Amino acid sequence: MSETEPARRPGGRSARVGAQVHQAVTELVHERGYGNFSVGEIAARAGVADSSVYRRWGSLESLLSDVVLTRLNARSPMPDTGSLAGDLRTYAAQVAREITGPDGVAVVRLAVALSGDGPQGLGAGDGLLAERTRQLQSMLDRARERGERPPDALDVLDHVLAPMYIRVLFGMGITPEYVDGLVDRLL
Amino acid sequence: MSETEPARRPGGRSARVGAQVHQAVTELVHERGYGNFSVGEIAARAGVADSSVYRRWGSLESLLSDVVLTRLNARSPMPDTGSLAGDLRTYAAQVAREITGPDGVAVVRLAVALSGDGPQGLGAGDGLLAERTRQLQSMLDRARERGERPPDALDVLDHVLAPMYIRVLFGMGITPEYVDGLVDRLL
Repeated sequence: MSETEPARRPGGRSARVGAQVHQAVTELVHERGYGNFSVGEIAARAGVADSSVYRRWGSLESLLSDVVLTRLNARSPMPDTGSLAGDLRTYAAQVAREITGPDGVAVVRLAVALSGDGPQGLGAGDGLLAERTRQLQSMLDRARERGERPPDALDVLDHVLAPMYIRVLFGMGITPEYVDGLVDRLL
Repeated sequence: MSETEPARRPGGRSARVGAQVHQAVTELVHERGYGNFSVGEIAARAGVADSSVYRRWGSLESLLSDVVLTRLNARSPMPDTGSLAGDLRTYAAQVAREITGPDGVAVVRLAVALSGDGPQGLGAGDGLLAERTRQLQSMLDRARERGERPPDALDVLDHVLAPMYIRVLFGMGITPEYVDGLVDRLL
C-alpha cells in the first residue's frame, strides 16, 4: 500500500483506511489498555469519520477482534517447507516475531482481554484459537501425508505457543534459540 | 476469620477488612475488567472508607498486585510430599484449582494486565514470577538433595504452568488428567 496510490482506486483508499484504523487501535491499546478508549477516539486518531468505522466494522468489539486476528497473523498462510521440522520451526519463528514486535505485547494482551467468557470477554478467543488450530492442523496433515509422524495441534499449542505467549505476557525475553529449542523438544 | 470475632481483637478486624477489599476487587475485575474501576468504588463495595484502603495499600496499583499475589497463592507454602513426582503433581493441581475457580480467570487476566512494561503495566509480573520461581526452585532443590534429577524451574513454567494459564485464558477447560499429563510428560 502506497501513499501515492491514485484516489480513483477504491481498494487503495479502503486498504489505507483499514491500516490507519488498525494502527490507531494498536496505539490506543498500548497507551491505555483495553476498555479505555472509544470508537470516536480511534476515528479521530486515524483521521476518519466515526461513521466510516461503524459502517465497516459494526462495533468496537468487532473492530478489536479484527485487529487481533490480523496482527497475530491468524489469517496468514502457514509455511510449507517440505518437512515437519522446517514447517514448525518457521511457524514458531513467525509467531515469535509477531509477539515480540513493538506492538506485539499490546496485541497479545488485547487477545487475552477479548477471549474471556465473562462480561469482559467477547469470545474473540474462540475465533483466534479456531483459526490457529485449523491452520496448524492442515500443516500437520501435510506432514502425515508425506509419511512423517506429526504431534497433535494441541501439543503445539501447549508446548510451543503457550510458553512463548506466557513469557512475552510476563515480560521475559525470548530468543531464536529458545524458540527452536521448544520445537526440537516437541519433535 | 469469623464474623463473631470480638471487636477488641484488632487482627480480626484487619483481616476482615482485607478479605472484604480483596473480594470487592475480584468482583470488579470480573465485572468490568482491569482499569475500569476506582479505589472509591472498591471501598464502597467493601463497606469501608476510601482512607482505609489508601492507608493500608497506598495506591490502587499496590492493592491490585496484592490481590493477584494472594489469590494466585504465590505466597503459599509449596507441597513437600517426599518425591519430585508427588510434589509437582500436587503443585500443578493446586495451580489448576486456583485458576479454574469462580474468579480464577479474572485474577489471571488481572495478573497479565499488571505485568506489562508499557504504560499499562505495573511490573507486578516481576513480583509474581519471582515469587513463583523462588518457591519452585526450593522444591526442586529438595528433590536434588534427595538424589532425584529435577527439571529446571523454567521448564516447569514453560511446560506445566504456561499451557494451563493459556488454556484458561482462552476459555478452554483443563481436567485433572490433563494436568497430571503435563507433569508426567515433563518428568
